[in-house]
Amino acid sequence: MTMPERIWTAALVVIGDEILSGRTQDKNIAQIASWLNVQGIRLKEVRVVADDQGAIVESVNILRTRNDYLFTTGGIGPTHDDITVDAIAAALGVEVIIHPRARAVLEKYYESRGGLTDARLRMARVPDGADLIENRMSGAPGIKHGNIFIMAGVPHITAGMLESLTGTLEGGLPLLSKQIGCWVAESEVADLLRVTEKTHEGCQIGSYPFFREGRVGANFVVRSTNQATLDVCIDALKAGLGEIGREVVDGGI
Amino acid sequence: MTMPERIWTAALVVIGDEILSGRTQDKNIAQIASWLNVQGIRLKEVRVVADDQGAIVESVNILRTRNDYLFTTGGIGPTHDDITVDAIAAALGVEVIIHPRARAVLEKYYESRGGLTDARLRMARVPDGADLIENRMSGAPGIKHGNIFIMAGVPHITAGMLESLTGTLEGGLPLLSKQIGCWVAESEVADLLRVTEKTHEGCQIGSYPFFREGRVGANFVVRSTNQATLDVCIDALKAGLGEIGREVVDGGI
Repeated sequence: MTMPERIWTAALVVIGDEILSGRTQDKNIAQIASWLNVQGIRLKEVRVVADDQGAIVESVNILRTRNDYLFTTGGIGPTHDDITVDAIAAALGVEVIIHPRARAVLEKYYESRGGLTDARLRMARVPDGADLIENRMSGAPGIKHGNIFIMAGVPHITAGMLESLTGTLEGGLPLLSKQIGCWVAESEVADLLRVTEKTHEGCQIGSYPFFREGRVGANFVVRSTNQATLDVCIDALKAGLGEIGREVVDGGI
Repeated sequence: MTMPERIWTAALVVIGDEILSGRTQDKNIAQIASWLNVQGIRLKEVRVVADDQGAIVESVNILRTRNDYLFTTGGIGPTHDDITVDAIAAALGVEVIIHPRARAVLEKYYESRGGLTDARLRMARVPDGADLIENRMSGAPGIKHGNIFIMAGVPHITAGMLESLTGTLEGGLPLLSKQIGCWVAESEVADLLRVTEKTHEGCQIGSYPFFREGRVGANFVVRSTNQATLDVCIDALKAGLGEIGREVVDGGI
């Protein structure tokens, strides 16, 4: 008998009026989700909240306690609407301090860019007890406090921060996935999908319909932490689709 | 003295493993947010949850009670991973029934498409007491139950459902916004932004930095429900940026 594997989970709080107003299309959810998969960590839940201390505190406190890791994006710049650090310090019940190494990083970064002003020094503020996350893209570092990872809102800066965290977080088995596609209405294969998932323990099957070139189709994603199990399930699904005369496209359509 | 205006709020629950796994880039948050603005309703909070009944019930029950409206996207198709209707019925403590008009709509839609199978009939299931939301794009309708609006996951189908809801929801004053852009580091104008917001009641200013063509810049969005207030605030911000010798681009960069 094998031990049930431990599943490591993360949550994400996306902070920013610009997402909730529809001004900005969020890209951090998909980016962080994909990165976490490779680290063997599942993104379990996401909340998008306004630049509002109460909303940030509420979501941070519930999500950090019920997940192994909590990520946040947004609100760590130098302007008045950047309140993430203060809100997380309040959530943790700690002071906000100037991190000496963050100050040094910013001093160096702004040396040739007009100097470290008060506004820029705001980006060295961290909840007391925090470490920094390296930011190779711009001056201001990300922040790590316990199991909380405070990242930038700008996706390519967050990408750099994720890169510097790669391999440093304990996780479990990465979630593997394989996608196939078919020109078929998903309603025609609903039974096949349900039965195939049921008879392949440890696999989940997702069905994602689309409408293109005047025809309906669907992509099917099988997810499992075990490559062999995944392959067997994919083969069964392909066989089932073959039996009803459908051509299957590996990788999806 | 004017009465403080009532602010109507909505929340959104995005349901789907495909968003949390990073497979699919969500587009419904931005789409629904923009649509709500026009209806005079603010999107206040969003949660992304897995295809998991417990997670859906938890988020639906808290968000529907503390907002005027609750929208959900995803999980209303014909396959085994489509559990939104069952989860919301459980959250409300009502039965799942076959809606007679939804059945009729599907019968008609599938008449020339192979007939209404059991799998397809699943898409006529609603929480008892629900009305339908018209879907001009494909067969299966959306669902309205009290202040809950259950929409499709596929963005263009959701777009059609939103269209058929346009003008039917009570809201307040629409949130207006105006954007200007400037080739300036936001840290250089942090004080200007803070003071300008503070001296223009009823306006929020958001600052959104970017890095392009080797230069840093920022777009600034002023939001208000009052056009005159908004214009005065934008003019003050432009004047402030002009004073430090910056050219302002209307509409943003």
